[in-house]
Amino acid sequence: MVLRVQKYGGTSVGDASRIRNVASRIAKAREGGDQITVVVSAMGSTTNDLIALAGQVTADPAPREMDLLLSTGELVSCTLLAMALRKLNVPSVSLGGGQAGIRTNAAHGQASIIGVDPQRMHRELDQGRVVIVAGFQGITEEMDVTTLGRGGSDTTAVALAIALKADGCEVYTDVDGIFTADPRVVPDARKLDEIGYEEMLELASRGAKMHPRSIELGARYKVPITVASSLHDGPGTLIHEVTTGMEVSNKVRGVTYEMGVSRITVRGVPDRPGIAAVLFESLTDALISVDTIVQNASAERLTDVSFTVDRADSPNALALAREVAVQIGAAEVASDEHLGNVSIVGTGMENVPGYASRMFKTLYDEGINIEMITTSQIRITCIVDEAKVHDAVRALHQTFELDQA
Amino acid sequence: MVLRVQKYGGTSVGDASRIRNVASRIAKAREGGDQITVVVSAMGSTTNDLIALAGQVTADPAPREMDLLLSTGELVSCTLLAMALRKLNVPSVSLGGGQAGIRTNAAHGQASIIGVDPQRMHRELDQGRVVIVAGFQGITEEMDVTTLGRGGSDTTAVALAIALKADGCEVYTDVDGIFTADPRVVPDARKLDEIGYEEMLELASRGAKMHPRSIELGARYKVPITVASSLHDGPGTLIHEVTTGMEVSNKVRGVTYEMGVSRITVRGVPDRPGIAAVLFESLTDALISVDTIVQNASAERLTDVSFTVDRADSPNALALAREVAVQIGAAEVASDEHLGNVSIVGTGMENVPGYASRMFKTLYDEGINIEMITTSQIRITCIVDEAKVHDAVRALHQTFELDQA
Repeated sequence: MVLRVQKYGGTSVGDASRIRNVASRIAKAREGGDQITVVVSAMGSTTNDLIALAGQVTADPAPREMDLLLSTGELVSCTLLAMALRKLNVPSVSLGGGQAGIRTNAAHGQASIIGVDPQRMHRELDQGRVVIVAGFQGITEEMDVTTLGRGGSDTTAVALAIALKADGCEVYTDVDGIFTADPRVVPDARKLDEIGYEEMLELASRGAKMHPRSIELGARYKVPITVASSLHDGPGTLIHEVTTGMEVSNKVRGVTYEMGVSRITVRGVPDRPGIAAVLFESLTDALISVDTIVQNASAERLTDVSFTVDRADSPNALALAREVAVQIGAAEVASDEHLGNVSIVGTGMENVPGYASRMFKTLYDEGINIEMITTSQIRITCIVDEAKVHDAVRALHQTFELDQA
Repeated sequence: MVLRVQKYGGTSVGDASRIRNVASRIAKAREGGDQITVVVSAMGSTTNDLIALAGQVTADPAPREMDLLLSTGELVSCTLLAMALRKLNVPSVSLGGGQAGIRTNAAHGQASIIGVDPQRMHRELDQGRVVIVAGFQGITEEMDVTTLGRGGSDTTAVALAIALKADGCEVYTDVDGIFTADPRVVPDARKLDEIGYEEMLELASRGAKMHPRSIELGARYKVPITVASSLHDGPGTLIHEVTTGMEVSNKVRGVTYEMGVSRITVRGVPDRPGIAAVLFESLTDALISVDTIVQNASAERLTDVSFTVDRADSPNALALAREVAVQIGAAEVASDEHLGNVSIVGTGMENVPGYASRMFKTLYDEGINIEMITTSQIRITCIVDEAKVHDAVRALHQTFELDQA
């Protein structure tokens, strides 16, 4: 008996007709006799609508209440999908995160899954039902509803695949798979048939179509994850352990980018141990995720620290940085709100010199100034003017010949 | 320590500003040091919107899925109210029906409360929090979410008052209390300061501002229930055990009415035992609530059976009646879609002759034809042309001098 976990994102269940479409796909997948568990996100803009509603009541909603509020979005889509399946004479049952046995810690708004008790799901599956689980949510020991944070439905899907010992996890979305670059930006971007967990993790961290946590989880438990379109058939992209040949000539697998990056610079920071810790601890306490950090070489025991955050977090981050600047006696705080980033990703890049210089030269030839640089083992990222990001992606896609298989 | 249970209906929490208004009222009520538990309905038209959404997916949603879907409406309003309270620095916590310990049977869509485990609520109250509970819902032994049926939030409120051993239950709504008649129809209708459970039950059954189940429950456990306005202050109407004087000259307490009544008549029914049972069993199985039933005296072993249903149920009831008519060999089925009813309610009426005849004469004087009559111990109801209902209410209010205390 094959046990499959499928996940459908918010666009795929955006309205009643799309929900019916997803139900047809599930019904078809079930014809072969497979047991199917489905994870759904909230319909379209529901989560944002609920956040806006809370914003009309208070500027500072309690995370516990916010979680119970937001959890309703996925309950709506999962019950509707179960109804649509029954209409196709497919037995089905919808389960909230708690009902599905998803236990989390009590970190409201960004809870971690502690464990999944699959008993109820197995019982329903064994009775021949398709199990529809509300993504993005779980329940604490206290029976309080939690959410896993944005994109958490992917994490739910992978966690269920692990708990159910499923044969794989299929993530259906509004694109055909993982591409060498965003096809809206690079018309000759190529869909990848497969990609390794590590590379996918870097792509996911930089805007590709999955939540990085879910990739990490999949990598740890070696769950094969397929990303494919919910709108038409096609093999999609398989994310799994890739064993490449000993020498691969083109090690860049994809170009990815993000818009909406803000940089905050604290100038004239006294160059003493522990100073950076004060700054970044206060940002962590405020749940602001910091991306790139650059510290310039010190001159006269003063240094400049720059970091980037999502633009949505920029006002808070700026306010905190100003507070900390006063505490630590820094000279000034500046921000630059119109940045983006562009990255090349590929395993093995670190062993082969020249990728970084080819990237920098490509940007130089395009007249694009590099504001900051950051690298990992398998990624090189440049922060650039937001208006130049698309040009940068296209140029890098060409330089590294990603249109060719 | 006074323990109060308050309930706010859908109109009272219809938008963010009304939710903030309700929060202010609760904050004020709490100033005296009382422990407060609040039950809320879904915001405004939410429940109907969710029903419509399900209708877009399937004409025949499974009751279990429907319940999980509809339960989200109250979760939204209760979390928003908790947020609004916290904004006023009032500690609060929102609880879904299951979290609040409301256990029901598995009769989805119309579940009965089996019991309420108040532990969690007491724990939260003892920590100084206002407890906000999602009305209208509970949870089965299987951890499946159920709903109590329309108006179930009133029942939730009374059940919580019983379980918490509260001093009373306050139901806040968009009217100032229970009136001798609908003030929109009868301008000189008078607010009642108090009313007995039995009388209120009859009024509630006929369109007054509370769900009859909640009144029954309150009567059984002798919970004093206050119905008052959520928009402005005022004592409202106290529903409790009323001990009236030995002789009360005017025993009619109120005139009430309903629009949207349909009558279905099965003509030429063979007058044999068990025939009526077949008809009404099939309606019960379809969850269609039948109100008045009239069977005419038989002629030549044939009889006519008429019954009334809510207009929304009329198409289904008509279809079922036609099926049954074929089975039992009845001659024909007819329906009349434009009826309403008008009732006079008051304890002691049955012991004093003349109320019925005064009612019938009043309607006759107004030129209103009586289609059907039904009575209880404390109520007389006439089914009349829907277009004449308001005239009937006004005339009866005057006849029984209800404008005078």
